[in-house]
Amino acid sequence: MTDSPIRKALPDFRWERVETLRYKAEGSAPFRDVTRQVLFGGDAMRCEWRYFEVAPGGYSTLERHEHAHAVMILRGHGACLVGDRVHTVGERDLVAVPPLAWHQFRADPDAPLGFLCLVDTERDRPQLPGPDDLAALRRIPGVADFIRTGDETDG
Amino acid sequence: MTDSPIRKALPDFRWERVETLRYKAEGSAPFRDVTRQVLFGGDAMRCEWRYFEVAPGGYSTLERHEHAHAVMILRGHGACLVGDRVHTVGERDLVAVPPLAWHQFRADPDAPLGFLCLVDTERDRPQLPGPDDLAALRRIPGVADFIRTGDETDG
Repeated sequence: MTDSPIRKALPDFRWERVETLRYKAEGSAPFRDVTRQVLFGGDAMRCEWRYFEVAPGGYSTLERHEHAHAVMILRGHGACLVGDRVHTVGERDLVAVPPLAWHQFRADPDAPLGFLCLVDTERDRPQLPGPDDLAALRRIPGVADFIRTGDETDG
Repeated sequence: MTDSPIRKALPDFRWERVETLRYKAEGSAPFRDVTRQVLFGGDAMRCEWRYFEVAPGGYSTLERHEHAHAVMILRGHGACLVGDRVHTVGERDLVAVPPLAWHQFRADPDAPLGFLCLVDTERDRPQLPGPDDLAALRRIPGVADFIRTGDETDG
């Protein structure tokens, strides 16, 4: 008997036989309170389907890359930077992150932000913003206050 | 101003700027009461991300193909055949349909069955079962009563 093709949903947005992983290696890039679960990957398809969850007040890494992201919010609410604009997002909203667009997801203070995120299996590594990139982002109204780079004083 | 990267969720599992399409050409294959929405596709990634919804009592086509499906139930409940077994499925359950596994989704009589389905953009065409395939499937307890091929008398 091989593994069942079904993995049942468990409470709290977990799944049978799906491991809850750290988002990235601690210290490799700025982020706060994010978990990662790989729902589908491996050799069967050319994409990986992941579920990320940002805890209330947390944020994903501000980054960009050549590959695109296809995202659906599955749980809670928050906001995301895509390119040069910040958007509020909630359950089932779709987010398309185009190649080389700076992006960052933040959960609202009172809710998690859980989202499905699809990427090509073969993809380039994320780029972190340099000082010039950050200066440019900080000149954009609405973006300056939104982005988190790990240098903020906790308030 | 280009299109916003955000497409907000609308009531009844619709989305901004996402068209509700017919599942397949009527008469091309047996199915009942299924709609299709393409959430992400095109050149940006090597996969297509679709949302299918089977109305209460409806069913998708019994078929197989070389390409795999990665599925998450998003709405309602029902059952699915994968290979030689029928499984009940509900919200957020994951279903992996391996290459060449016969599969069919059915909504329960009292609920829709809406699911996200991921496929490679480059993929083979579905195969319908021939008489020998159907005879083999009908010899499997539990499968015989489950499958719908369009030949059933409406009860």
